[in-house]
Amino acid sequence: MTAIERIAGVMGGLGPEATVDFMARVLALTPASRDQDHIHMLVDQNPGVPNRQEAILRGAEDPAPALAAMANRLESAGADFVVMPCNAAHAFQTEIEQALSVPFVSIVDVTVEAVTELSSAAVGLLATPAGIAAGTYQAAMREPLIVFDEAERETFMSLVYAIKAGDRGEAMTTGMRRLAEALAARGAGVLIAGCTEIPLVLGPRDIDVPLVVSTDELARRTIELARGERPLPATGT
Amino acid sequence: MTAIERIAGVMGGLGPEATVDFMARVLALTPASRDQDHIHMLVDQNPGVPNRQEAILRGAEDPAPALAAMANRLESAGADFVVMPCNAAHAFQTEIEQALSVPFVSIVDVTVEAVTELSSAAVGLLATPAGIAAGTYQAAMREPLIVFDEAERETFMSLVYAIKAGDRGEAMTTGMRRLAEALAARGAGVLIAGCTEIPLVLGPRDIDVPLVVSTDELARRTIELARGERPLPATGT
Repeated sequence: MTAIERIAGVMGGLGPEATVDFMARVLALTPASRDQDHIHMLVDQNPGVPNRQEAILRGAEDPAPALAAMANRLESAGADFVVMPCNAAHAFQTEIEQALSVPFVSIVDVTVEAVTELSSAAVGLLATPAGIAAGTYQAAMREPLIVFDEAERETFMSLVYAIKAGDRGEAMTTGMRRLAEALAARGAGVLIAGCTEIPLVLGPRDIDVPLVVSTDELARRTIELARGERPLPATGT
Repeated sequence: MTAIERIAGVMGGLGPEATVDFMARVLALTPASRDQDHIHMLVDQNPGVPNRQEAILRGAEDPAPALAAMANRLESAGADFVVMPCNAAHAFQTEIEQALSVPFVSIVDVTVEAVTELSSAAVGLLATPAGIAAGTYQAAMREPLIVFDEAERETFMSLVYAIKAGDRGEAMTTGMRRLAEALAARGAGVLIAGCTEIPLVLGPRDIDVPLVVSTDELARRTIELARGERPLPATGT
């Protein structure tokens, strides 16, 4: 047995494909030659959480109680720390942390850390309208971000909904690449894939500008924490 | 909201890639156009369960306590029924069911049901040495099964361990196809992929003989039960 130190709790279903993609990336990024080398994760694949876009942008049903309940369920089941492979839902991080006595590890924080280490160029953020409106990345970065304009936000969200509906075709990749290139054309020298649906259709090899994939950054941090290679952060509350 | 009726508990990590593959198949087989259409699953991705092959074939550390604890954890966290996308570990179904007060749905039973509905031809079983030795498929089928000889069992297991170590290359597919063709050459008119690592490298389109994939059969049944389209079976104890 390797020294599997800590159980990672994964708040999933936001969306479900992105959760499976996150889990696959955790496996791919773990140095492992047999089952027992992998990390232990408890995953709540709960697609029933109310729509985060509608809540943040239009005041529809608040997903915070469902997210807090999910976090709590994972901690009760044994999670030593909790992660959530969905960027927009981090708008509700405070409510999630209030439900937890174990640390919540933010995908926004680990991604900002990675992009800051990688480059001092202007950063472009590919994110959903709610992700942009919530301002989580803007708050975590010291420098201003280059973000989508109104028309690009709509286009991006229509792609995300199509991906959530199961479309991973070439048109999705092309549409996503065009949006990334628009941010680069406005001066971004490095891009954040700040929505976990993006890497389902667009990877770093699809564009010329460096792309920091938030799903990968969260996967790497999750592995390090689960394997005890890094101390747990302090709890948020 | 769709009527998501029941939470599926998934005993995972046996192996971890097979669990992610199972979850991806559940998503692919669910009629869904948005997050909220998908089913709710609680997944214990626990790769630390002692090696099932070693336990069954050579009397090494018993995985039953770890499996029972995993089942119990899922029920405590809210699972309305429990599935396990690993065929060999079904040798410990009795111990798992003793730990549960909710139903355990056997991958062996749903796969045998599917293969019986599909064909009256002689059935070939692709399974691990422990899966064959445990006799779970033989017990569930009315007719005798065509299984691997000693040399084929060794070859098959070396492929499975390579897949678990991350190899999904063409050599894996070729090796697996040859083993499938060997069972067909001995009279099998339909084959069971009775190990959840198989579909990571071999699908029905890779061979001429019909291949019933146990992962898919369990995914279909899980979806039907979670959506309330089928009554829960009786509990095992």
